[in-house]
Amino acid sequence: MELFSYYRSSASYRVRIALRLKGVDVVYRAVNLVENEQRGGHYLTINEQGLVPSLRLDDGSTIAQSPAILDWLEDSFPSPALYPSDTTARARYRALCQHIGCDIHPLNNLRVLRYLREEFAADASATNRWYAHWIDIGFASLEPAARNWRGKYSLGERPGMFEVYLVPQLYNARRFDVPLEPFPALLELESRCLELAAFTDAHPGRQPDAPTTRP
Amino acid sequence: MELFSYYRSSASYRVRIALRLKGVDVVYRAVNLVENEQRGGHYLTINEQGLVPSLRLDDGSTIAQSPAILDWLEDSFPSPALYPSDTTARARYRALCQHIGCDIHPLNNLRVLRYLREEFAADASATNRWYAHWIDIGFASLEPAARNWRGKYSLGERPGMFEVYLVPQLYNARRFDVPLEPFPALLELESRCLELAAFTDAHPGRQPDAPTTRP
Repeated sequence: MELFSYYRSSASYRVRIALRLKGVDVVYRAVNLVENEQRGGHYLTINEQGLVPSLRLDDGSTIAQSPAILDWLEDSFPSPALYPSDTTARARYRALCQHIGCDIHPLNNLRVLRYLREEFAADASATNRWYAHWIDIGFASLEPAARNWRGKYSLGERPGMFEVYLVPQLYNARRFDVPLEPFPALLELESRCLELAAFTDAHPGRQPDAPTTRP
Repeated sequence: MELFSYYRSSASYRVRIALRLKGVDVVYRAVNLVENEQRGGHYLTINEQGLVPSLRLDDGSTIAQSPAILDWLEDSFPSPALYPSDTTARARYRALCQHIGCDIHPLNNLRVLRYLREEFAADASATNRWYAHWIDIGFASLEPAARNWRGKYSLGERPGMFEVYLVPQLYNARRFDVPLEPFPALLELESRCLELAAFTDAHPGRQPDAPTTRP
């Protein structure tokens, strides 16, 4: 399988984590968002929406949208499970993932920030305030859930989809200097994840298309 | 079960359609978004994110986020199925739903339009352009998929989750006068849905909290 990814795309980052948690190997295909490669003719034949990530399966079919890819991974490689098994617990857990996937991340996407700059003449401070606003109200509603979890991770002894969404969103928040002190339970969860190779290997800085910084 | 809904909320509208397609009865609880009831203390005990819809189950537990509610309904009331049964077909189909659920709708939410007005001094014409922009690029990538479906609906002889997302999004588009001529296949799908009671009964104008217009 091939993963079309951009190192700094947090939706790609989610899929990279989930692949590693499930021990699934893929070929990494870099798509440079800053150079608009995702709008180029070649990539549009793979993903007509022109967004990353995409997962191309061995039969040549492609899955777009990170939540759809994540659910496909869960269906196709059920172990270790990344959702609770009980139907209602799973739905409530999914909703927490979607706080990030639907109510924070789409608002802070690169294409949205570009629109604000171009159409509303937003300067860096205005786009940073926008960015921080959606993270702030989103994380504020997630922090109590994280505080209530009794185990080391959201699924007890192991991380699940919540961490798959959370860790890339925290990475994004830091890129835009969003203050994170109000969210100690989320930060604690992140620090436990960063003890695991599945998370550190999936980090943007460790991807083949990350800029190398040599002394 | 109780559905916390606002008649004009398209995320609530989705859930109303899916409930009817599956023949599941619920008690309707209106939450007035224009009067900010969703931020009131009572509703926040049900949904701490302060968004509609929420589904309160008979055991008192609550599910937030319409995609999580929709998946819970699919798990709990599997017939009629609203997704394809094949794993890969389902993932590809889910991605189309998420084009709407993640890449159009969250950008055009009431709270986002309010932010644009308050922080960027956006007037009605600027917020309408914003609204139309995200619908336009989203629908443009969905139209080819809709053209390729051979049957009457996205699942052949019956509608599925795609229509559950599409019909409310088209309703929203019309509220903001977004030109829809470029999307004949999506409109054709909608017109077939509007032949079905599940869709017409779920329409905003038919809900208990809709304003009545009497001659």
